[in-house]
Amino acid sequence: MRADGRQNDQLRDMKITPHYIKHAEGSVLIEVGETKVICTASIEERVPPFMKGQGKGWVTAEYSMLPRATQVRNQREAARGKLGGRTMEIQRLIGRALRSVVSLEALGERSVTLDCDVIQADGGTRTTSITGAFVAMALAMQKLVDNGKLKSLPITDYLASVSVGIVGGRPLLDLMYTEDSQAHVDMNVVMTGDGKFVEVQGTGEEASFSREELDSLLALAEGGIATMIEEQRKALGHVSALIGTGARA
Amino acid sequence: MRADGRQNDQLRDMKITPHYIKHAEGSVLIEVGETKVICTASIEERVPPFMKGQGKGWVTAEYSMLPRATQVRNQREAARGKLGGRTMEIQRLIGRALRSVVSLEALGERSVTLDCDVIQADGGTRTTSITGAFVAMALAMQKLVDNGKLKSLPITDYLASVSVGIVGGRPLLDLMYTEDSQAHVDMNVVMTGDGKFVEVQGTGEEASFSREELDSLLALAEGGIATMIEEQRKALGHVSALIGTGARA
Amino acid sequence: MRADGRQNDQLRDMKITPHYIKHAEGSVLIEVGETKVICTASIEERVPPFMKGQGKGWVTAEYSMLPRATQVRNQREAARGKLGGRTMEIQRLIGRALRSVVSLEALGERSVTLDCDVIQADGGTRTTSITGAFVAMALAMQKLVDNGKLKSLPITDYLASVSVGIVGGRPLLDLMYTEDSQAHVDMNVVMTGDGKFVEVQGTGEEASFSREELDSLLALAEGGIATMIEEQRKALGHVSALIGTGARA
Amino acid sequence: MRADGRQNDQLRDMKITPHYIKHAEGSVLIEVGETKVICTASIEERVPPFMKGQGKGWVTAEYSMLPRATQVRNQREAARGKLGGRTMEIQRLIGRALRSVVSLEALGERSVTLDCDVIQADGGTRTTSITGAFVAMALAMQKLVDNGKLKSLPITDYLASVSVGIVGGRPLLDLMYTEDSQAHVDMNVVMTGDGKFVEVQGTGEEASFSREELDSLLALAEGGIATMIEEQRKALGHVSALIGTGARA
Amino acid sequence: MRADGRQNDQLRDMKITPHYIKHAEGSVLIEVGETKVICTASIEERVPPFMKGQGKGWVTAEYSMLPRATQVRNQREAARGKLGGRTMEIQRLIGRALRSVVSLEALGERSVTLDCDVIQADGGTRTTSITGAFVAMALAMQKLVDNGKLKSLPITDYLASVSVGIVGGRPLLDLMYTEDSQAHVDMNVVMTGDGKFVEVQGTGEEASFSREELDSLLALAEGGIATMIEEQRKALGHVSALIGTGARA
Amino acid sequence: MRADGRQNDQLRDMKITPHYIKHAEGSVLIEVGETKVICTASIEERVPPFMKGQGKGWVTAEYSMLPRATQVRNQREAARGKLGGRTMEIQRLIGRALRSVVSLEALGERSVTLDCDVIQADGGTRTTSITGAFVAMALAMQKLVDNGKLKSLPITDYLASVSVGIVGGRPLLDLMYTEDSQAHVDMNVVMTGDGKFVEVQGTGEEASFSREELDSLLALAEGGIATMIEEQRKALGHVSALIGTGARA
Repeated sequence: MRADGRQNDQLRDMKITPHYIKHAEGSVLIEVGETKVICTASIEERVPPFMKGQGKGWVTAEYSMLPRATQVRNQREAARGKLGGRTMEIQRLIGRALRSVVSLEALGERSVTLDCDVIQADGGTRTTSITGAFVAMALAMQKLVDNGKLKSLPITDYLASVSVGIVGGRPLLDLMYTEDSQAHVDMNVVMTGDGKFVEVQGTGEEASFSREELDSLLALAEGGIATMIEEQRKALGHVSALIGTGARA
Repeated sequence: MRADGRQNDQLRDMKITPHYIKHAEGSVLIEVGETKVICTASIEERVPPFMKGQGKGWVTAEYSMLPRATQVRNQREAARGKLGGRTMEIQRLIGRALRSVVSLEALGERSVTLDCDVIQADGGTRTTSITGAFVAMALAMQKLVDNGKLKSLPITDYLASVSVGIVGGRPLLDLMYTEDSQAHVDMNVVMTGDGKFVEVQGTGEEASFSREELDSLLALAEGGIATMIEEQRKALGHVSALIGTGARA
Repeated sequence: MRADGRQNDQLRDMKITPHYIKHAEGSVLIEVGETKVICTASIEERVPPFMKGQGKGWVTAEYSMLPRATQVRNQREAARGKLGGRTMEIQRLIGRALRSVVSLEALGERSVTLDCDVIQADGGTRTTSITGAFVAMALAMQKLVDNGKLKSLPITDYLASVSVGIVGGRPLLDLMYTEDSQAHVDMNVVMTGDGKFVEVQGTGEEASFSREELDSLLALAEGGIATMIEEQRKALGHVSALIGTGARA
Repeated sequence: MRADGRQNDQLRDMKITPHYIKHAEGSVLIEVGETKVICTASIEERVPPFMKGQGKGWVTAEYSMLPRATQVRNQREAARGKLGGRTMEIQRLIGRALRSVVSLEALGERSVTLDCDVIQADGGTRTTSITGAFVAMALAMQKLVDNGKLKSLPITDYLASVSVGIVGGRPLLDLMYTEDSQAHVDMNVVMTGDGKFVEVQGTGEEASFSREELDSLLALAEGGIATMIEEQRKALGHVSALIGTGARA
Repeated sequence: MRADGRQNDQLRDMKITPHYIKHAEGSVLIEVGETKVICTASIEERVPPFMKGQGKGWVTAEYSMLPRATQVRNQREAARGKLGGRTMEIQRLIGRALRSVVSLEALGERSVTLDCDVIQADGGTRTTSITGAFVAMALAMQKLVDNGKLKSLPITDYLASVSVGIVGGRPLLDLMYTEDSQAHVDMNVVMTGDGKFVEVQGTGEEASFSREELDSLLALAEGGIATMIEEQRKALGHVSALIGTGARA
Repeated sequence: MRADGRQNDQLRDMKITPHYIKHAEGSVLIEVGETKVICTASIEERVPPFMKGQGKGWVTAEYSMLPRATQVRNQREAARGKLGGRTMEIQRLIGRALRSVVSLEALGERSVTLDCDVIQADGGTRTTSITGAFVAMALAMQKLVDNGKLKSLPITDYLASVSVGIVGGRPLLDLMYTEDSQAHVDMNVVMTGDGKFVEVQGTGEEASFSREELDSLLALAEGGIATMIEEQRKALGHVSALIGTGARA
C-alpha cells in the first residue's frame, strides 16, 4: 500500500478549475493531490525575432515556484538574478511538449506564452504543469476562434503528462514528493490523445534500470495519461470536442 | 457613483483565507475586490549577517506578481535577471511596516520572511500585501508560541494598509485599478490598531496637492483601516486576542 | 540645542554653485551643511521607447554616492552588478518630483536626465538632490530657450525638498546624519513654489506617529522649503524670473 | 544510404586520445566523426557545501562550445553573462550520468569536475561528452589510486552514450548534424557496461512517436554503445581492467 | 602651438587640494587642466581572502567617471550591471602602479582602497588618477603613523604618471582630449621619484611607431613626471619629507 | 641556463597548424612550447552599431581559457556571469593590435571576430594569441578574395607578439610560466613586419625598472618577433606573399 492508500497504478485526485485568472486569455488552477499550479495562456500578436516573417506562430512556456511552495523556503530566482538549471530544463520541456500538438502554421504570426506557477508542490510539478497548460492553451486559442481571428482551433490532439518511477522495487504511477525522493528511477512521460509519445525522460540517478523496468513504467504512464485526458475534456466543456478537428482538416 | 457602485468612503469586499499554503508556518489568501495575493510567512532559526549576535530577530518581505496577474503580461523579473525599482520599493515598504509592530527582542534570533505573491491585480496590491502579510505573520509567530519556542506573541499591535487618492477631484478610499490610473494624487497609508501612522506616502505625479486634500485623504484612510483590522481579527480566530498582549507585557 | 547649534526650525547653511561641470547643459554643486551633491542635467533629443510619438518629453533621474561619501566605505553598485533598493527608490522619487513641475508637452520630444552624485554625505542626500537638480534642470532648459529650440521655459513652478523628523521627542527641520540615525520618525517632503505638496513620505521604522506629530512635521517642512526656494532663486540669477511664466501662459 | 556512406546501425569513426591536456588529472580528446571534444577531469580535495560532512564525494560536469565550433559563430555565454538553458540541461545530464557509475562513498570527500569543451561540433556533442568524460574520469581516479589516496578505482561499471533518431522514417544510429536537424524524433541514450539504461531522453519536437519506433531506437542505441565501450577500453589501457573491480568488491 | 598655447613639453596647470572629502582617511581633488578627479584612500583593517595570513597588506583601486564628466552623457556602469573593459583595465593599472611604491610587509594586514572618481574629463584621466591617488594614499597612511598603528610611512618613493603622444607628427606632453583623440600613438607612463619606470604602455591604434618615436615620448614623460612630483610634495606638506624614509630603513 | 635549456634570447619551439577548425573561415592551432591556443577568424557581413554607415569594416577579438588550461582549475567566466578584468584587458589588446595592420576601408562593411581559446597555458598566452590570430585572420580574409568579395588582401603588414622579462636580473625572451611568475619586469611587445612597434606594455609589479633594462628588453623582443614572422609565413603558404601587397597599393 502507498502512503496515501493508492494502488500502484492509481492517479491522485485531480481537479482542473478553468478561468481561474480573469486577465489571461486562458487559465486554470490544476490540482493533482497536494500539487497546485496556476497555468495561464497569454496571446500576443507578434512572434520572437527568430520566427519573424515565416507566417507561423510560436508557443513557449515559463515555469516558477513560489518561494514557499516547498517544505523549506526557496530563494526566488529573481532575487538570485538568474534562472536555475532545473527551471530552464522544465520550461524548455513544457514549451516543446505543447508545440507538438499545435499547428504553428494554423496559429499564424502570433505567440502563446504559457506561465506555470506552482503555488504548492508535492511531486510531479512539471507533469502537472504540462497537463494544466494544455487546457489553458486550448481555452485561449478558442478565444481567438470566437473573436474571428482563427477559423478553427489549431490544436491537433490532446496532450497530458505524468510521472512514473520505481520505488522500493515497485513501479508506481504519479509519484508524490515522498515517493519521488526515494525513487531509484524517475520517468516523465508526455503523450498525445492517440497514445503516441512526445517525450520520454527516464533517469536513474546513482542507479541504472533494465529494459523490463522501462517497459513496465511506460505501461503505467500510458494508463494514467488516458485518465488525465478525460479530466481535461471535462474542464474544457464544449471546447473539448473541437480539439483536433480544425488542425487536422 | 464609483464604477463598482461603492461610496467614496467604502472599501471593496475583502476576504482572508487563512492556512492557504500547507507548507508555510503561516499563510493566507487575501482578496480585496479582484486583487488576490498569497501571503506566506516562513520562519528560519537564523538572522541575516548584519543582525547576528544582537539577540534580536528580523522581519523581511519579498513581493512579486505572476506575469499574468495584470491585463497585459509582464516579463518575469527572474527572466530579466534583476528586480525592478517598483518591486524593491514595495518589498522594502512591506518589511519596514511589519517590523514596526514586532518586538524584535521578543522574537529572538530568528527571522520571518513574508512572501507576497500577487496572483491577480486590480489596484492596491502593496497595501493588500501588508494587510495579508500581517495575518500570515501572526499565524506563524503563534506557531512558535504553540511549539514552546516563544512565551508570548511578539506582536505589539494590529497593522493594516489601504490606498486612497483623488480622482476627478473626489477623495476616494481603496482605489481599484481603473481609479488608480486616473488619480492625480495617490496615497498609501499604513496604520496600527491604536490609530497611529506607520507610513504615509503621498505622491502627486505630474500634479501637486493642498494641505486640505492631504487631510481629507488621511481621514478616509483612517476609517478604512479600522474596518480592515476587523477582518484581520476574524481571520485570526483565537489568535486575534493575543495581539499586543505578550509584547506589551 | 542641536549638535551644530541650530534651532529646531533652522536649515543648515546652504550653497548652490551653478555651472559646476562644464560639459553638462545644466549643473550645480549643492552644499547643505556637510552634504555635497553634484547635479547635472543632460538633454538628449530623443525620448525613451515608451514615450515615443506622443509629442511629449521626459524627465528622469539617477542617483549615486561615491564609495567614500560616507563614514564607512560602501561598495560600488557597479562592482556589485546591480542597483540597490535604496538607490532605485531615491532615483524614482527624484524623477517623479521634478516631472511634477515640468510641462512635458511644452518640453517636446526630448529628454532630460538628472544625475545626482553625492560626493559627501551628512544626511538629507535625497532631498538635497531634488533641490539641486531643480536648478540644474532649469539652467539646462533655459539653454534650449536661448538656442531657439523652445519658446519659453517649460517649468511651471519652483520645487524644493527637505527632510524633517522627530528626534528625542522634538520635531526638527533638516536632519543631519547624527540626528537622522536617531530619529523615530523620518519624513521627506517635496513642495512647490506656491506651497503645495508633491511628495510626502513619512516613515516610522520600528515606531509609529500620531496625527499631531505629522502636522508639526509638515509645518516645519513648509517653512524650510520656502527658504530653500529663495536660495534657488539666487543661484538661477536672471533665469529665476522665468520659472512658471512660459509654461503657465 | 546515409550522406557519409554509413549503414543505419553504424557508428562514425571514433578516436580517443588520452592525456591530451598536461595539467589535468585526467584528460582526453574524443573525436566522433567531425565532432571533437576536449574532456578534462579535475580533482579537488573538497566537496560542495551541500555534501559536506557526509564522507562522500561528488562528481559534476560543465559543458561549453567554442564560439566557432559551429557553422555560424555563437556568442560566448561568458559575454552574455549567463548560461543558456541548453548548456544547463546538458551539464546536468553529464554529471548525473557519470555519478551513476561512481561509488561516492568509495571516492571519499573529494570532488571531480568534468569539463567538456566542444572544439568542433557535428551532432552528438552531449553524448560524445559523456563517452569522453568517462575515460577522463577513470584516468584521474586511477591517479588517486596510484598516489595511494584510494585503495581501488571507485567506478562500478563502464558508461557510454549515443544519439539515435528517426530521419525520413528510418531509425538511425549516431546522428551527424545534417541528420539531427532533419530528425522527427531524437533520442539520447546512456548505458552501462552491463547493458542497463542510465538515461533515456526521447523527444519529438512538433511530432510524436509510437511504441514501435521507441523500441527500434533503443535497440540501435544498445548496439552502438557496446562498440563505444570497446573504444573506451582501448584508450584506458591497463586501467581498463580495473573498472568495476574495486567498487564492486 | 597647441590649442591652449602650451609648448610641446609643457604640462597643463595642475592643482591638488588635500583633505577634500571629510570622511576618508586620505583624499584629494586633483585638477590637471580641465580634468578633475576626486581621489580617496580608505583603510580597512583586513585584507582580501587571497592575501590572508601572510602578514602583508594590500592596495587596490577603483575608477569611475560621473555620467556627465564627458561631453556626451555616458550610461552608468551600475545601471548596465557590469564594469566595462576600459574601467577594469584602468583600475588594474592604478592599483598595480601604487603597489610598486608600497612595502606591503611594512603596511601589515590591512588594505587601502583608492577610489578615483572623475567628475570632469578632458584627457589623461587615468594618469591624473594615479598622481592624485598617490597623495591620498600617503595622507591616509600617515594617519596610521599618527595613530601609532605604524612606526613609519610604508611608502618607498614618489610616484606620478602622465600621458604623452604623437599628434600630427609632433611628440606632445600631457594630452588634453582634443589632442588625445587625434593622436596616432598614445603612451601612458608611470615613474617613481628616482626616475625609474613602473609602467610603460604605448599603443598605436591603427598605426605603428618607430624606436625613435618611442624614445622621444619617454623623454617627454620623464620631464613631466618630475614636475608633477614637485606638486605632490607641495600638497603633502610635512608628510612630503617622510616618503621613502621609513620603508627604506 | 634556463629551465628548459634555452638561451636567454631563444624562442620556444613554435608550431602553427592552419585550417584546424573546419567551420571557421580561418583557423589555426598555435603551439609555443607547452602553450596551445585555438584561434578562429569568423567573418560576418555586418559591423557593430557604432561603425555603421562608414563604409569601413571592424576587427575584434575574444579571449578565453579552458578551465583546465592551467595547473589549478579556474572557474568559467560564463559560470561566474561576467568577464574578469584580465580577460577584458587581453581581448582589447588583441583586437587593437590586429586592427593596426588592417585597412578597415579596404575590408568594407564586414567584421572579423578573432576567437582565441587557450586549451593549455604555459606563459605567453596573450602574445601567442596575437601571433596565431594574425594567421587565422589572413586565411579568412584571403577566402574573401578567393570568393570575389574583395579584390585584394586588406592586410598592410605582418604582425606578431612576444613576451620578454627580467628574471633574476637577466633579460629573457619568451617567458614560460615558471619564469613569468618570478619576473620583476614583464613586457609584452607587438611589432609589425617592418620592425615598428604597435604595442609596448611594460610592467613592474612591486618593482620598477631603468631605461637600460627597458632598452635591453625591446632588443630581445625585436629579434624574437622577426623569427615568429618567419613561422607565420610558412603556415600561410601561398597567402604569405600577398600580405601588404593589396592594402598598400
